[in-house]
Amino acid sequence: MENITCPGFKAAGVASGIKKNGESDLGIIFSTVPSNVAGIFTRNRVPAAPVLLDRKRIEAGVCRAVIANSGNANCCTGDQGMQDAVSMAAAAANALRIPEESVLVGSTGVIGAFMPIHTVEAAIPDLVESISPKGFIDFARAIMTTDTVPKLVSKQGRIDGKPFTITGAAKGVGMIEPNMATMLCFLCTDVGAEPTTLRQCLVASAEQSFNRITIDGDMSTNDTVVLMANGVSEIEIGSPEARQVFQNLLDDVTLQLARMIVKDGEGATKLVEISVKGALSDEDARTVAQSVANSSLVKTALFGEDANWGRVIMAVGKADVEVDPKKIDIFFDDVPMCKNGLSCGEAVEEDATRVLKKPEFAVSIDLHLGQGAASMLTCDFSVDYVKINADYRS
Amino acid sequence: MENITCPGFKAAGVASGIKKNGESDLGIIFSTVPSNVAGIFTRNRVPAAPVLLDRKRIEAGVCRAVIANSGNANCCTGDQGMQDAVSMAAAAANALRIPEESVLVGSTGVIGAFMPIHTVEAAIPDLVESISPKGFIDFARAIMTTDTVPKLVSKQGRIDGKPFTITGAAKGVGMIEPNMATMLCFLCTDVGAEPTTLRQCLVASAEQSFNRITIDGDMSTNDTVVLMANGVSEIEIGSPEARQVFQNLLDDVTLQLARMIVKDGEGATKLVEISVKGALSDEDARTVAQSVANSSLVKTALFGEDANWGRVIMAVGKADVEVDPKKIDIFFDDVPMCKNGLSCGEAVEEDATRVLKKPEFAVSIDLHLGQGAASMLTCDFSVDYVKINADYRS
Repeated sequence: MENITCPGFKAAGVASGIKKNGESDLGIIFSTVPSNVAGIFTRNRVPAAPVLLDRKRIEAGVCRAVIANSGNANCCTGDQGMQDAVSMAAAAANALRIPEESVLVGSTGVIGAFMPIHTVEAAIPDLVESISPKGFIDFARAIMTTDTVPKLVSKQGRIDGKPFTITGAAKGVGMIEPNMATMLCFLCTDVGAEPTTLRQCLVASAEQSFNRITIDGDMSTNDTVVLMANGVSEIEIGSPEARQVFQNLLDDVTLQLARMIVKDGEGATKLVEISVKGALSDEDARTVAQSVANSSLVKTALFGEDANWGRVIMAVGKADVEVDPKKIDIFFDDVPMCKNGLSCGEAVEEDATRVLKKPEFAVSIDLHLGQGAASMLTCDFSVDYVKINADYRS
Repeated sequence: MENITCPGFKAAGVASGIKKNGESDLGIIFSTVPSNVAGIFTRNRVPAAPVLLDRKRIEAGVCRAVIANSGNANCCTGDQGMQDAVSMAAAAANALRIPEESVLVGSTGVIGAFMPIHTVEAAIPDLVESISPKGFIDFARAIMTTDTVPKLVSKQGRIDGKPFTITGAAKGVGMIEPNMATMLCFLCTDVGAEPTTLRQCLVASAEQSFNRITIDGDMSTNDTVVLMANGVSEIEIGSPEARQVFQNLLDDVTLQLARMIVKDGEGATKLVEISVKGALSDEDARTVAQSVANSSLVKTALFGEDANWGRVIMAVGKADVEVDPKKIDIFFDDVPMCKNGLSCGEAVEEDATRVLKKPEFAVSIDLHLGQGAASMLTCDFSVDYVKINADYRS
């Protein structure tokens, strides 16, 4: 990850002092040329100040930089919080000599505490001083909270023979629930595209990545996904073909980041795909997948490596969509646990346990009613999840 | 609890051998005279065989006995499961010399394993042999799964100067989620009442008790609440006044049982009331209360005795009902944590921590938008919850 770049972008991360333990907590991404931008934000009804600010600024469709911090969510901070978000952006703009309105802000951390704004402002000149093409890894580290690893992905593609890049940095790892954005994620690309096109591509990509993951069913007040496109590759996403190539690569990048987020879910020891087919509609399938993916009893059984498909079928049944219990099949990877709603017996236990011991596997559910299908990525629910969250603030 | 009775009813509980550890697992309640009955059942779309059987039998409005077991849910057991439920009832009816259709069945335990029906049948003559007026405590013990204490409540009231009794036995303690019934609960009373009246009273009572509790947001396949009324007190619930007295006492009994269930929630160390007012409607208030009561991040913070009201407001915001972040107040008991959406600062931390160390307290949320109000009872989410559920089956 140390060598990850994106043409025409620079980035950096420093320890500004927001986090009392001296860890990195302030990052910046800067486009050396004016960039178009699109974003999607949390649907939480108590959005943080930076979300409110970004929503307004992003309407212009252009952006030069993003400044983001961890350690403080700047949420439930009222007018002062909004002033602080504006100040963070202004200080960055000032140091970068770009217009104030062309800077977006992202924050993550504790809710309800005021941002130590003077500390942040004091660190911004140093932060801007240290930007470099290879600074993405430092940026990715600066936005970590309970993340155990930085999440950074970069991929190259070709349109009309010319290469282009998409680079994304993200952080999880609690309060992850599919509905709009699900955490902080900043994506950069060197293609050129209209803000409307960017937005459509981003929404489509999020739908198959960030909106398909769940860790604890909680939805953050700060979720933000931003995509900047600065056009330095001189590739314009105009034709349907070019757009499709770009969309495919964006899907790859976001899906990989989404998987990294679930894999690094708080206390998680396993990455599990919940795959549903045979529902009356895709929406039904998704409701069922989400019900299973979010069930505490399913997730604790996964942690315990207990082949308890009964909890899976319980969670299918509580989803409140049409099912016929006598038609339901459940598999752990390719091991049938339940056929036509009946146990496959003790003969499969050994095979099932082998699957459950893997770090990644799938729970597949076939409702045998229609063509509807959907899948979700989830993780197990461990003793460490509780430990991490019982004393996160203190 | 050892002396709890209900006039005209006898009960018993034995270890039949369903549970391999030799604990009590089979119970019976018998009305010495014909009894009217009402019931409410899980809304899970994969209901267990006994639920399907009881739903049909209860339409007649009469019942003489209930046989219930723990250790096996008789769910996802297909036609065999239905035959087994019928056989359990038939064996009890045979031993009690009452009509087969007048026996209801309740089961709780592992999903997807066939009932060891011969073991159960073999134990029924002994079970019936041991019934006695004071057998309710044995019955309450027989239906325990991960419950750590039996749940049994009896209360007396007076109508027109004559005494009457309501006695109820219940079991929790996982898969508790408000929506219809929420666990096994068998209520007996010596008043006389039409099945329709009984049903209305039971639904109203459940609404303010079992439908207001949550442990893990999961909804069992087997939830069953049954109310038998045998009339031996010679009090008839006819007049609105008599009915109100009965309703009040039934509310008391069910609320007390509901509280016992949450308090004994898997791994729970605290009983917490989530109380919401000032919502635009009661329904909105309930949606918010449920969102907070079910949030893993709120529940782990409660376990950690961390006064993290930011997670409470996050869960308020994710409830997807109308709120104004600048009007939200949050209290832990009488300690204000957040006023008008802003932190009350470090001054309240000490008081808040004192509240959080209590075994029972309230989280109160005022949205200051309207008159809607609702409350939920929940428990904290502990390391033990995960441990209990990681290896429940094995």
